[in-house]
Amino acid sequence: MTYKTLLGTSDFLESLRGKTASFYLSASYTQSSDIEGISQAGLKGLLHLTPVLDFEFLCVQEVRSLENIAVTPSGIPTPAIITRAVHTLKAFASLEFLDLGVKKLPQLEHFPIHNFDISFSHAINTKTTINAFDIFQKGLEFGKTHESSGEYTILAESVPSGTTTANALCLALGYEVENKFSSSFKNAPNKIKDTLIKEALVLCEKKVDIFEKAAQSADNMLIFNAGFVLGQSSKNKKLILAGGTQMAAVLLLVNSIVKEMNVKFDASNLAICTTKWLEKDENSDFVGILKLLDFSINAYASTFDFQNSSSKILKKYDEGEAKEGVGAGAALCYAAINNIKEEELLEKIQHFVGE
Amino acid sequence: MTYKTLLGTSDFLESLRGKTASFYLSASYTQSSDIEGISQAGLKGLLHLTPVLDFEFLCVQEVRSLENIAVTPSGIPTPAIITRAVHTLKAFASLEFLDLGVKKLPQLEHFPIHNFDISFSHAINTKTTINAFDIFQKGLEFGKTHESSGEYTILAESVPSGTTTANALCLALGYEVENKFSSSFKNAPNKIKDTLIKEALVLCEKKVDIFEKAAQSADNMLIFNAGFVLGQSSKNKKLILAGGTQMAAVLLLVNSIVKEMNVKFDASNLAICTTKWLEKDENSDFVGILKLLDFSINAYASTFDFQNSSSKILKKYDEGEAKEGVGAGAALCYAAINNIKEEELLEKIQHFVGE
Repeated sequence: MTYKTLLGTSDFLESLRGKTASFYLSASYTQSSDIEGISQAGLKGLLHLTPVLDFEFLCVQEVRSLENIAVTPSGIPTPAIITRAVHTLKAFASLEFLDLGVKKLPQLEHFPIHNFDISFSHAINTKTTINAFDIFQKGLEFGKTHESSGEYTILAESVPSGTTTANALCLALGYEVENKFSSSFKNAPNKIKDTLIKEALVLCEKKVDIFEKAAQSADNMLIFNAGFVLGQSSKNKKLILAGGTQMAAVLLLVNSIVKEMNVKFDASNLAICTTKWLEKDENSDFVGILKLLDFSINAYASTFDFQNSSSKILKKYDEGEAKEGVGAGAALCYAAINNIKEEELLEKIQHFVGE
Repeated sequence: MTYKTLLGTSDFLESLRGKTASFYLSASYTQSSDIEGISQAGLKGLLHLTPVLDFEFLCVQEVRSLENIAVTPSGIPTPAIITRAVHTLKAFASLEFLDLGVKKLPQLEHFPIHNFDISFSHAINTKTTINAFDIFQKGLEFGKTHESSGEYTILAESVPSGTTTANALCLALGYEVENKFSSSFKNAPNKIKDTLIKEALVLCEKKVDIFEKAAQSADNMLIFNAGFVLGQSSKNKKLILAGGTQMAAVLLLVNSIVKEMNVKFDASNLAICTTKWLEKDENSDFVGILKLLDFSINAYASTFDFQNSSSKILKKYDEGEAKEGVGAGAALCYAAINNIKEEELLEKIQHFVGE
């Protein structure tokens, strides 16, 4: 297995070869995801459960808060199966859940579940209830003070309809990101998404402050993670943002905050890792979003795909469904720098989907 | 894969089974290597770049300070490809560069490059500029104070024409090492080497002090590493000298210093590991050199060779070209005690040379 350097050099990732990472899942729920047809990251009517099911499967290979693992309407299983498969072959130093406003907690013992007293947020076309500055400060504080047990840190996310809020946030912040954002669908429901984003932007119009804009357009994960990134930057520990365009949006928010506050930001210990499916996605522009940053960032994509799999359901990933989430891209890069064999990984993943 | 115990018992190496090592590359440049035909460890006219290219390839699998990896005039690739292949299969805890007077630093981020304010040295048949006692003390201090991240330490070298300076040093110190030293050539250019050594020994004749002798006959690596070995000996951490006759010369220098200073030296946490090619070399006598030591030492050689490879270029190693360097022998022993499969390793190495 290997990876591709999208931005920067291979040095960052190569310096982590063989090392173990702590894995954090930022889990959040925005009622934006309740809008019919906006996301396929989970079961209809139960999308708010997706982050919880993802984490349960990641930790114990079974879902407890529902009968089945999260699948899309067309039956595509969550990328959590990829991250879980990697974990069984080269275990993460820890698996930790950041509760950024889920409605229900994972039913697990012995796995850290961090509570930040953050509630789920309302849809971004309504008066959201997000206290963005408070959430940002909680992320900042956690990033500054928390000591992870791994040699470096992987920060992933699971937020249904998160690409829509990520897109809305970046537009609200004034970035030119039209047509640059991804979707868990192969054929993104652009009309539904665009309408929601437009409505959110109208509500943002009179807001001046970054945090007020974020409160109206973003989800809790985006805001908390921006704080986490800034909090971690004071440490001599490497951090990988595990995700596609949502994590790229976290970086744009960091970028805006850094500019606004006129502070220096050192991104040398920071990178972003995603999947091949996201990198190759013709309907979004991951690298294009990252190029809007005023600081330079190391970006990598795994080269793993399901070309060598006989599973029809998994091959849907190669066709552009699901693409990324639950840190799948970073987990695949983790596999690449830890000498995991592709065949072995494939076998594990196929086993999870019963093939 | 396995290894052979040349001196001592297998206990030292067996006690390290499954553990991770930090890997240090002592890199130095002596203008002795500019003498036409003396070394084939690198590209003609650019031999001073060899240690830098070796380290770049080891860390990121590409060379940045030149277009191609260091090859001998007959096209034999550097042993760095062997060490890199091992690293990708069982990563070292860290890869660190000890700048003992290279003309150019490796172009890398995120990999420690230790600066000791040591300049490259002139050819040993001229007035060398080495301040041997100062370099020795820097090695001693680093060995005493530096905390490596691995469970034990591998100290390797990359010094073009280093076997010649190693030979000269041992003769200057009064050891009977005629015909015991190796060369990166299959057919060693004995005339050129012997002339240079004789000229250095003439300049050494009136010198009494060990460090003065070393200053005239050695290279920076030999002197620094002797200090490092003595500095480390006060620690409860195992150290493997990774190399052939050059590292054996480091031990003879340690031996002379210990005798001269009349101090006790405990070598129980120390071993030396080399390749099969060096051990089997008919033109040198690795074990013979080690037998001149007044203390006993554990010595091992990997049993790996390219017999099962279809690569003609790699088979040159089996014929006696290149033989050792960049810690290849110790890396192969590391592979042996970490359950790396020979076929897998071979495949990696062949991939690097495009076969």
